[in-house]
Amino acid sequence: MGGDRGLQVTVPAAQAALREHSDLRLILIGRRDEVRAELQRLNGAEDDRLKVYHASEVVGMDEPPAQALRSKKDSSMRVAINLVKTGEAQACVSAGNTGALMATARFVLKTLPGIDRPAIIAAWPTMRGHVHVLDLGANVDSSPQQLLQFGIMGSLLVGAIEHKAAPKVCLLNIGVEDIKGNETVKKASELFRQSGLNYGGYVEGDEIFTGTADIVVCDGFVGNVAMKTSEGLARMISRLMKEAFMRNLLTRVAGMIAMPAIRSFRKKMDPRRYNGASLVGLNGIVIKSHGGADSYAFENAISVAIAAIRNQVPELIGSKLSSMQVRNASA
Amino acid sequence: MGGDRGLQVTVPAAQAALREHSDLRLILIGRRDEVRAELQRLNGAEDDRLKVYHASEVVGMDEPPAQALRSKKDSSMRVAINLVKTGEAQACVSAGNTGALMATARFVLKTLPGIDRPAIIAAWPTMRGHVHVLDLGANVDSSPQQLLQFGIMGSLLVGAIEHKAAPKVCLLNIGVEDIKGNETVKKASELFRQSGLNYGGYVEGDEIFTGTADIVVCDGFVGNVAMKTSEGLARMISRLMKEAFMRNLLTRVAGMIAMPAIRSFRKKMDPRRYNGASLVGLNGIVIKSHGGADSYAFENAISVAIAAIRNQVPELIGSKLSSMQVRNASA
Repeated sequence: MGGDRGLQVTVPAAQAALREHSDLRLILIGRRDEVRAELQRLNGAEDDRLKVYHASEVVGMDEPPAQALRSKKDSSMRVAINLVKTGEAQACVSAGNTGALMATARFVLKTLPGIDRPAIIAAWPTMRGHVHVLDLGANVDSSPQQLLQFGIMGSLLVGAIEHKAAPKVCLLNIGVEDIKGNETVKKASELFRQSGLNYGGYVEGDEIFTGTADIVVCDGFVGNVAMKTSEGLARMISRLMKEAFMRNLLTRVAGMIAMPAIRSFRKKMDPRRYNGASLVGLNGIVIKSHGGADSYAFENAISVAIAAIRNQVPELIGSKLSSMQVRNASA
Repeated sequence: MGGDRGLQVTVPAAQAALREHSDLRLILIGRRDEVRAELQRLNGAEDDRLKVYHASEVVGMDEPPAQALRSKKDSSMRVAINLVKTGEAQACVSAGNTGALMATARFVLKTLPGIDRPAIIAAWPTMRGHVHVLDLGANVDSSPQQLLQFGIMGSLLVGAIEHKAAPKVCLLNIGVEDIKGNETVKKASELFRQSGLNYGGYVEGDEIFTGTADIVVCDGFVGNVAMKTSEGLARMISRLMKEAFMRNLLTRVAGMIAMPAIRSFRKKMDPRRYNGASLVGLNGIVIKSHGGADSYAFENAISVAIAAIRNQVPELIGSKLSSMQVRNASA
């Protein structure tokens, strides 16, 4: 268990989450001896709220999902998702291989009735708060009907978690007028208009961050590129800013003086606060942490799972789907 | 002429470009009286190097391209592109409606032999310098063959302008392993491998900014979303940083002390320095400036045109295309 950085991240994150949430119980799944050793190193131990379950196998971060699904029946990921299936656990949080997690979750938990494909949704910061964006890479080619399903799932999730009656959902599109969107987006827009959702029309990439939408819907290829591009740009800006302040003695002193302001700015933008993407559309809660997450970030992913459990997100999506037009639209 | 901000931007930019490049000659095209009045206001006048040509019509920034093409035969955009066609001008620079500019340029100039569709290419900053990205929105659905054509055009353009023998071209893809790319990208990758280009394989969105590639190829929908998303994120970061320094007297003083460092950082990232996207694949040079460009940014777009003229980009692309595999690949 633990993505790129392993138990040194997940075990302290688990301990912090248990301190933070008094009604939380956690099961750590991995090579039992290693997990216990790490717990011991951190002066922790198993108790009523913290269990360690054994899983003998590990899915590699670059392992093909189909292979992991077929041959790693005792991976920590598979064992965790099986616990969600049996109801022993209410959610699974993993920093592992995204493709394998999605394939395993889909195989074990199955999609909700009325949902063709699960999607990956996460919150991003905006000028006014945050926005939820999906799909971030679970699908590469989505039909208009699938985009509508993403919109419905996103609206229900955001409605449940943020207690908004009618969150505003927009479709990501491009701004060159000749070709305002491809055919899929145009058809999806018609479906959104008839859906009963609070549909706010198209947004372009830059409007994701203005906070005009509560949910932005796009296909997984586009969403993944937008997410990774944003991550890369933020990393570059952060590095160039650091370099500018490290250039000479004068700028270093200036940097120290400016540190409180820089810190408050960094805190707002801290990607760790936004760690934890939900795999929606499944009969169960599965949260994907960034593979490179540190323990603060991983604790946030656990919090995302807690919010989904408290607000019964899959049950809500499942029960509301039948009363909405998705079945008609996809029929 | 002049995009969102009109003559107040383009006329001083023209004057600055003429001062900067002693062998440059410019023709300003628009409503003659208005252009002349603006010139006069800036103590300028027509001479051997600066002419004003009349165009009675203006294409609105939101006007459908097909309508502009059909009904605005005397728009500044159309007159300018006609001058490129006749050879009286060597390039057209416009801050106007992108779709209309593309449609008009394609209609008047035609695409180069072997090129199905023109593309929009621009330079973006990276940690090590810059990268050229295409297509940024001229096409919404591109075939593998078209992506290869984009790669060839990008390689030739970057090779010519930056005097690189074999610039490294990569394909933008997504990182969820199960579905490493859609079918189009996978097929395009095979074509790139056989193309004789210096093909560096896939990059993900975040790698655009690491400087690993000289050229990143993607379809226009994805490229436009990546571009606009980056613009929006950069704007948000800039605004939040400003807010952090404006919060109270202490942070304001810190901001003043830190100003030299902040300025040097901002200069590196200044989007105005990267203004000027090329419409490649046409029998002629057409450069698109950002609609909201100021005169410094617009002057940069003029410089992009100058570099394309000096390095004979369309001629080079046209002559080299026949000796490359593009014809076989697209046959």
